[in-house]
Amino acid sequence: MSTKSVKYSKQYTIGVDFGSLSARAVLMRVSDGEVVSTRVFEYPHGVLYDTLPAGTPLPPNWALQVPADYRNALHILIPRLMADTGVKPEQIIGLGLDVTSTTMMPTTIDGVPLCERINFVSEPHAYIKMWKHHAAQRQADRILALAKAENVPWLKQFGSFISGEHYLPKVAQIADEAPMLYEKCGRLVEVGDWLVWQLTGKESRNYCSAAYKMYYSKTEGDVSPGFLEKVNPLLKNLRSKLPPRVVMPGDVAGVISAEASEFTGLLAGTPVSAAGVDAHVTSIGSKVTSEGDVLLIIGTSTCIMMLSDEYREVDGINGVVPDGIMPGMNAYEGGQAAVGDIFAWFCENCVPQAYYEEAKQKNISIQQLLTAKASGKKPGETGLIALDWINGVRSTLMDFDLSGLICGVTLETKPEDIYRALVEATAFGAWKIVSQLIKEGVAIDIVYASGGIPLKNPMLMQIYADVFNRDIFIIDDQYSAAVGSAILGFAASEKGGGFKNLGSIVEKYRHEPETVYHPIRENAAVYEKLFEIYSELYEEYGRRTDIMKRLRKIRGDTQ
Amino acid sequence: MSTKSVKYSKQYTIGVDFGSLSARAVLMRVSDGEVVSTRVFEYPHGVLYDTLPAGTPLPPNWALQVPADYRNALHILIPRLMADTGVKPEQIIGLGLDVTSTTMMPTTIDGVPLCERINFVSEPHAYIKMWKHHAAQRQADRILALAKAENVPWLKQFGSFISGEHYLPKVAQIADEAPMLYEKCGRLVEVGDWLVWQLTGKESRNYCSAAYKMYYSKTEGDVSPGFLEKVNPLLKNLRSKLPPRVVMPGDVAGVISAEASEFTGLLAGTPVSAAGVDAHVTSIGSKVTSEGDVLLIIGTSTCIMMLSDEYREVDGINGVVPDGIMPGMNAYEGGQAAVGDIFAWFCENCVPQAYYEEAKQKNISIQQLLTAKASGKKPGETGLIALDWINGVRSTLMDFDLSGLICGVTLETKPEDIYRALVEATAFGAWKIVSQLIKEGVAIDIVYASGGIPLKNPMLMQIYADVFNRDIFIIDDQYSAAVGSAILGFAASEKGGGFKNLGSIVEKYRHEPETVYHPIRENAAVYEKLFEIYSELYEEYGRRTDIMKRLRKIRGDTQ
Repeated sequence: MSTKSVKYSKQYTIGVDFGSLSARAVLMRVSDGEVVSTRVFEYPHGVLYDTLPAGTPLPPNWALQVPADYRNALHILIPRLMADTGVKPEQIIGLGLDVTSTTMMPTTIDGVPLCERINFVSEPHAYIKMWKHHAAQRQADRILALAKAENVPWLKQFGSFISGEHYLPKVAQIADEAPMLYEKCGRLVEVGDWLVWQLTGKESRNYCSAAYKMYYSKTEGDVSPGFLEKVNPLLKNLRSKLPPRVVMPGDVAGVISAEASEFTGLLAGTPVSAAGVDAHVTSIGSKVTSEGDVLLIIGTSTCIMMLSDEYREVDGINGVVPDGIMPGMNAYEGGQAAVGDIFAWFCENCVPQAYYEEAKQKNISIQQLLTAKASGKKPGETGLIALDWINGVRSTLMDFDLSGLICGVTLETKPEDIYRALVEATAFGAWKIVSQLIKEGVAIDIVYASGGIPLKNPMLMQIYADVFNRDIFIIDDQYSAAVGSAILGFAASEKGGGFKNLGSIVEKYRHEPETVYHPIRENAAVYEKLFEIYSELYEEYGRRTDIMKRLRKIRGDTQ
Repeated sequence: MSTKSVKYSKQYTIGVDFGSLSARAVLMRVSDGEVVSTRVFEYPHGVLYDTLPAGTPLPPNWALQVPADYRNALHILIPRLMADTGVKPEQIIGLGLDVTSTTMMPTTIDGVPLCERINFVSEPHAYIKMWKHHAAQRQADRILALAKAENVPWLKQFGSFISGEHYLPKVAQIADEAPMLYEKCGRLVEVGDWLVWQLTGKESRNYCSAAYKMYYSKTEGDVSPGFLEKVNPLLKNLRSKLPPRVVMPGDVAGVISAEASEFTGLLAGTPVSAAGVDAHVTSIGSKVTSEGDVLLIIGTSTCIMMLSDEYREVDGINGVVPDGIMPGMNAYEGGQAAVGDIFAWFCENCVPQAYYEEAKQKNISIQQLLTAKASGKKPGETGLIALDWINGVRSTLMDFDLSGLICGVTLETKPEDIYRALVEATAFGAWKIVSQLIKEGVAIDIVYASGGIPLKNPMLMQIYADVFNRDIFIIDDQYSAAVGSAILGFAASEKGGGFKNLGSIVEKYRHEPETVYHPIRENAAVYEKLFEIYSELYEEYGRRTDIMKRLRKIRGDTQ
């Protein structure tokens, strides 16, 4: 974190990026886009996988969070940014924020999270359902079948799939499993919209999550009550639990209220942008906003964003939305449900004691040790191939009943072999998505990568370049999403010009990436063969056989 | 080990069982079959996977041993058995031994192992090739293609497959890769026959490994030189490197020589039985020798022995040999190339530090900890299925280019889940073999299990009973193979009556097993579903796709 003394006359904007495990905030100078301070706040409750804070056990595939962690992040981060630098509240001309999505919860009509009401403390459905809450797959399947039967116009826009990570399956799960809670709750809100509501006192929905996750369109509006009723009769009144006002990220959703002024230290009246979805906002913060740009945001999961003048409905791509990121361009979104999470799972569960001791001796992390050992291997040398489906599949199969697979294990297989095979699997998974776009005629120009992993793991990035057989440019900024939110905050300010002006703002701040990974010809040749095998497994387990679904069914029957 | 004072007038027999990592010896009282002393000798060199003792690196899939370890075992174990008990050399009326198979090596015409000659110390082909040396798969494939093309009569007797673990592929590998060594060596012997040669000064082959591993038959003799020549022109003279005399285990191969008397402390002239193959001899030592008996010998690998009046040529069963174990009965042999080895691999490579600490605190082994944790799971609860092919497949696919697979991995998967899935996979693999025999009309009566693992791991045995959906009776004797060899030694003595008398000897020593595992109905129902999935994977990777072979090919290309 940098601490600088600055001139009072200068203007600043704040961006807060709410990730899966922490919130990061930046204070950005408007004149040149320089980030003058950064701060991180780890959510004290993290992710609730096994139990609620008071001990109530959770079924498999659940992933919940506690809204107080988000609210407290604002309370702690914003004043600290100013304290770090001496920047005064009157110098802050705008605020933006982004959150993962669909990350949603039920609240009262006044915005009080239901899990903060004493009678709902032990009710899992009262908490935040994270994007990676994968227990709404049955609802997603039902909605997909219904959408196909009804031939709804919006289905193709979402790759002809319904993801269990989307808004509607999560809401349907609440209606199915906790009908009383569904009826009692006043709102079922995206956490990003809820935070803006907390800051401004005014309700709205941001266009980004409405369009990508709620199937809202500028021309057609929301999913019809008739359709919702068929999903679950209770959902007939879902629109009454959502504010009708939809705001573009970069446009003003409201201004800091008197109450929020106390809470954040910002001046009442400071403009607040509509929230954005983290991956989309990262594109803006990374300044990867030109026609043909592909951005891989590689973190706990991977989001793949692509901008194009072309509008194509591509099977298995999670969404294509006009004006989805930048004005006048179509933004495609694809992704993998776990990447860093896979490596973390592996390190926690599958690495033997001797390796921990070696890492300790060398004073490096266990992942650094595995990377060092795996770097010594040539492509194909492990004899392994894996499917990166350990947290289910987002693109291009959108099925969270699928699971991971490791093939080729022998008595000679070492932990670093499996680790390398998992890294390669994530590269194959990413290439599967990008090559699906290419196959469907969306022209690709330059591939960029951002996020924590590309900065930390050169072996991984070289593997990606070899698998893609293309140069990959690295966005050397671990705060890209927060910077994107700061840009939204600036756009929302009086001098910013709003959403329609985003292009020229980003243009002003753009600079060329310094790090680029070039493919190595002989590696690319081996990976081409391995990608063929990966693709065969993809078809086999994704489409031909239902083995993974039967395993999950048998497992479910034991609960 | 028990130390007892005994009357000089009593008679004893000694059995030595040479396993993969150690030799076990027993001193058995002839009158009632009581084992009065046991001793174990761990091979100092163990198994050579990566390098020769002097550092020469080995390619993948090799598994070698050092013959001095075997010789030293005799030198150390036999005198100690007598010293333990006060039994005198004149009270020892016979000696028997068994070795894994095909475990073979080249020697001079006088029986000096080539690896003990200074000019061959750095030549991998001069060492013992263990049964689990899996680098002769190319030769096995070639021999199989040729045997099919020539329509040789003996192929069906070996399940219509040629195993890379057999004698001929190993010899062909030497001829292919070290032709000069092939030409220079005087003998290419099974280690069991070599040990008997060392003890008696007389060369012979035992019928058990000749029939099961060298394709020898009482009526047809050995594989024809014409066929061998087509495998590799050098092999035309293979018969000259093998003694023509074939002796039944239980018949006398020779008597202790003057030199061996010094070496072992036994009287010169003591009868020595022809060697046996460990798994077959275990059937005798376990007294599992009746029509319809199935014996699972579960150790580093699993051997499945089955006795029947019926002679059937069953696809994928490694061998069926008349008089193969007991006179007058057909003995079927099937097996899995790794079982305990899989668990050992898992414990060494895939169990995290926290588990080691927990095991240490509880003062139990890591495998005991994993078993305790995995025992808490219900069948199907792990959501995983695995193929037990981590060291290749013996029955019923006989293909060592196949490899392991784990399917169904999620972020919730714990080490004990994978461990349990691997245990279940070995049970499915064993049931695949037994059910193949049943399918082909070989009637099964009682299932027994012996070996170290059944005694140590009740969870594993319950899973086997549930998967088999049958009672499984446990042979409560970790020295069954050595006892079988002691019985062979007794049979070979003057009062023993030889091979043809084995039935009545075993009958005299037989007693009912005390431990039996009964299947649990609801578990069996779940495992029936999981076995269906296992069988689909078996077909998919064993027959439909060549993915595992391609992975191995790509891996081989990187070397």
